[in-house]
Amino acid sequence: MMKKYVPEDTIRRLPVYLRNLINLKKEGKKIVSSKEICFSLNILPHQFRKDLSYFGTFGKRGVGYDVDKLIYTLEKIIGIDRKVKVILVGVGRLGSALIRYKGFSTLNIEISYAFDNDPKKIGKIIEGIEIKNIEKMEEILKKEKIYVGIICVPAEMAQSVAEYMVKSNIKAILNFAPISLNLPKNISVNYVDMASELGSLIFKLKNL
Amino acid sequence: MMKKYVPEDTIRRLPVYLRNLINLKKEGKKIVSSKEICFSLNILPHQFRKDLSYFGTFGKRGVGYDVDKLIYTLEKIIGIDRKVKVILVGVGRLGSALIRYKGFSTLNIEISYAFDNDPKKIGKIIEGIEIKNIEKMEEILKKEKIYVGIICVPAEMAQSVAEYMVKSNIKAILNFAPISLNLPKNISVNYVDMASELGSLIFKLKNL
Repeated sequence: MMKKYVPEDTIRRLPVYLRNLINLKKEGKKIVSSKEICFSLNILPHQFRKDLSYFGTFGKRGVGYDVDKLIYTLEKIIGIDRKVKVILVGVGRLGSALIRYKGFSTLNIEISYAFDNDPKKIGKIIEGIEIKNIEKMEEILKKEKIYVGIICVPAEMAQSVAEYMVKSNIKAILNFAPISLNLPKNISVNYVDMASELGSLIFKLKNL
Repeated sequence: MMKKYVPEDTIRRLPVYLRNLINLKKEGKKIVSSKEICFSLNILPHQFRKDLSYFGTFGKRGVGYDVDKLIYTLEKIIGIDRKVKVILVGVGRLGSALIRYKGFSTLNIEISYAFDNDPKKIGKIIEGIEIKNIEKMEEILKKEKIYVGIICVPAEMAQSVAEYMVKSNIKAILNFAPISLNLPKNISVNYVDMASELGSLIFKLKNL
């Protein structure tokens, strides 16, 4: 029972709520209040309830939320109630760090394939994942249901890698290259732009 | 001549415009249109002009923007017309990748100190930066004008590291740990939350 329009900010907060709930579960919590879910998130409980309301009615006023149930519901809503496989292109320093990053598995996300064009890297294994030749990507993805890709290549290669991903049936891209991608409108792109995040912090430091 | 209120989104776009201008300069451009500056950014030229208007009047209608002048102006506005030193805490895989990341220097940002609490890491040198004992942070920062810190420690350590940063005179934090920080209101915090970015992409894939 999802409303048609869900604000971008709400979408971004869903995985954050889920991760907090998983932590609360680890602490042994069975029933939690919206205040507990939002604790340390700089989000008001009211905002949390509003975000959830886009997807139906959950929890009981004065009683709270069943932790297991809400985890299951959020996983369903986000689409990670089953493991989601993603690929990564560009196994440089950042790429290797991401392959080794533990934070994805909490959200049932697994980097299943890593690709590079460097003969010195192809064939190497990181965390059980063999680095494949980028030229094999389309062929490999034909046989798989993988629609999400991570780009960690240098800026000047990012656009052509992104186009090749789209050709290989990727529908959503997380781009770490410091450049904007020009892709068909049906492709979702999120950006992680570390230098620009630092730049905006420095601006605030000086001006606010 | 800055207007008092500048929207968060405008602040975030300033370093992105600047980086594009630096690339245009490298290509030999001397005068550019707002369309050229926004090319590949998924930002409308109108938005760019509006963003700039918070800081005064720039460029000439029908003529365009002087690249060198606008680079200088944006560097001034952001506060990176001189090199800005930042520190990094947590030299794990992501931390090391960030120390080696070339994208910061384009924006005149330099990671000047890296700290860790692991005796096996302390004393090692990455890209010319010696990893220091985290316990020395306050003492070292007392002698320096450094107000920006990057957190790359595991989630469970991030809050205490952030508090120690604040005690050491850090005023702005870029947090890569997948947890929200609870800090005094005068401290600016930006988050880079990679798992949540992937999660929100997966949601869009399923729903949009």
